[in-house]
Parts: sequence; C-alpha cells; structure tokens
Amino acid sequence: MNSYNSQLLDNAVAELGKLPGIGRKTALRLALHLLRQDEAESVALGEAIINMRKNIRYCKVCHNISESETCEICSDRSRDPSIICVVENIKDLLTVESTREHKGLYHVLGGVISPLDGVSPSDLEIQSLVDRVAAGGISEVILALSPTMEGDTTNFYISRKLAPYDVEISMLARGVSIGNDLEYTDELTLGRSIVNRVPYK
Amino acid sequence: MNSYNSQLLDNAVAELGKLPGIGRKTALRLALHLLRQDEAESVALGEAIINMRKNIRYCKVCHNISESETCEICSDRSRDPSIICVVENIKDLLTVESTREHKGLYHVLGGVISPLDGVSPSDLEIQSLVDRVAAGGISEVILALSPTMEGDTTNFYISRKLAPYDVEISMLARGVSIGNDLEYTDELTLGRSIVNRVPYK
Repeated sequence: MNSYNSQLLDNAVAELGKLPGIGRKTALRLALHLLRQDEAESVALGEAIINMRKNIRYCKVCHNISESETCEICSDRSRDPSIICVVENIKDLLTVESTREHKGLYHVLGGVISPLDGVSPSDLEIQSLVDRVAAGGISEVILALSPTMEGDTTNFYISRKLAPYDVEISMLARGVSIGNDLEYTDELTLGRSIVNRVPYK
Repeated sequence: MNSYNSQLLDNAVAELGKLPGIGRKTALRLALHLLRQDEAESVALGEAIINMRKNIRYCKVCHNISESETCEICSDRSRDPSIICVVENIKDLLTVESTREHKGLYHVLGGVISPLDGVSPSDLEIQSLVDRVAAGGISEVILALSPTMEGDTTNFYISRKLAPYDVEISMLARGVSIGNDLEYTDELTLGRSIVNRVPYK
C-alpha cells in the first residue's frame, strides 16, 4: 500500500505520518476520517495548525509561547516576579503551571545539557537566565528540571553560573520519581515537590 | 490544564483533540511538536489536510476517491471491467487492492446495512450497483464486506437485488475470521479469500 490512488490523499497521509507516534496505518485512518467529516471541520484543523505555527511568538523574557512581546505569565501583575522557576520546555512549564503551586515567573531553557545529543550550555537559554538574575530583583531560582542525569548536570551548571549572585537556588523536592521525565509525574506529587523544595546542594 | 496561555495553541490542541484516538495529552504533544519543527513542515501538514479535503472528488462510477470524474482504477484499461468487487468503504478498497489478487473494478457502498445505527439500504450506493449490473457487461460481483452480521445482511440484500440479472455473485471465502472488521485481516488471509471465493448461497 504505497499509493492510495490519489496524490492528495498520499500527501496528507505522508504529512500525518511524520507526526511523532503516528504510523502509516494511523495516518491513513486519520486522513480518511478527515475526508469523511464535514469540510469545515477538516479545514479548521489545517488552518489551526498553520495559524499557530505562523503566528505564535516567544516571550522575550522567559521564552514561553506568547502572542505578544512578553507572555501572559510575565505580564501578570499578580505573580511574584522575584521567583523564577527554570523548566526544560514549554510542556514542562504547562505541567508545573497546572499544579497551581508556583506563583512566580518562569524561564524556559529550551532543553537540558546533553553531550550525547550534542546539546551544550550555549544551545540553551542559560545566559539569558544569568542576565535576568544579574539585573537584580530576583530572590529565588527554582530548578524544576527532570530528575535525570541530564537534568542534574544542567542543575549543577546553572547553580555554578548563579553562584556569584545573591540569589537563593532551590530544586524540586525529590518526591518526584528519579529517572522519569517530568511530564509523566502526577500533578499532586509534582505540586508537593514544589512546596517542599529544598536549597540546592 | 484548560488554557495554554495562547489562543493559537488552544485552538490547535482543540482541533487535534477531535481526531479519533487522539486525547488531550496527545493533542498537546502533537501541537508542541508542530511548534518546534520547521515552519515549512507544519504548514505543509496543514495545507495537505486542507487541499485533500477541499479538492478530492469521488468517482462517479464506483465512488472511490478520485481526482477526476472516474477514478484511476475505473480508468485503468488493463483491469477487467466485467468483475466488480463490492466493498464497504475506501479503506477496505485499499486493503483489498493491497492483496493484488483482484484484477477487476470496485464498487464502494459507503457503509453496510445497520438498523441499529440507522443505516438503511437507501443510504448506501446499492441502487447504483444494481444500475451498473443492469447496464450489462458485468459477469461477476464479488461481495467483499466484513464477515459481521451487518456485512452478511448487506450481502443478502444485494444478492436479492441482483438475482434478476445474469451475473454470478460470489463472496469472500470464509478464511477471514468471523466477527472481525475487514481492515484487521492480514493481507495473506484476505488475498487467499479472494482467490478461493465461493458462489453466494
């Protein structure tokens, strides 16, 4: 089954099949579903994807997704701007945010240090975090990276970079299961880990 | 986690989450993947979906997907136009086609008779099948519906409708597992069932 007798269907199946976790059979099933349902529904999906990818921006302060220069969280006056929670990516930001335990701001690194994957500190938003702290007004940096080797390495690197500054550095309480990715942690455990956070080292 | 701090992301997650088998968490994962990868890639997916849904047509003879009035299969002079294989939907057509055992044409019913789901014979392309047979030149109709109660009911209904005409009616050999949907049958078993097809009743 390489060709589905229609270049249009072939294209859609090929593009859907590039999504993570979507194999060729699932891609075909999704494509046929999109053909079967109302045209408006399928077009809405296509347009939502294009609009999102073309128009979404990133906060110049914390690198969260945003629709303006600074994101909704950084612009929220009710949040404590003196506490920065450092996360690996936007998904982890959303996961931490869903616990409702963090009242401060964020800093999205865009990854963790991983020599095996060719990710070095300069590939991440670490210098911009140091700059934020250096600018003053920050009392605490919470390191909320996944409790993996790469996360620990990144925690260590950041803590060294921030050592010259008068800022408390804390990390998630090790209630989170060691070796798991942060996104699989349940909200209760993760929230508790933020409440019980401990000083770094 | 109801809002992701961005209406654009919210929309994309909501639309992706409407796809069959895609829950809210998977939808968010897919949306973030689409954000991360090259803009051209994500736009290509969105456009492939829209182009497919807006521009695909259906063959006026067999109701297969098509990009012109008659589909590639009906237009293929190397195929035997005297044998029609009746299938429930386009996915089953693709499954039968992948066995390479059927050299004739197809007829896509658009479903099977199912009073419980409110599908009656008039909702299906049965009359157009009878018209094709009535027009002459057809020597055999192969009923390749799923071996379920609904499939059997539809087989019976079609065989009665075609009884007045001088056409052989065959059905898939019952090598296919009874009670399963056709799309889950492996290609070898299905191919064998076409080769060993038996006269209806």
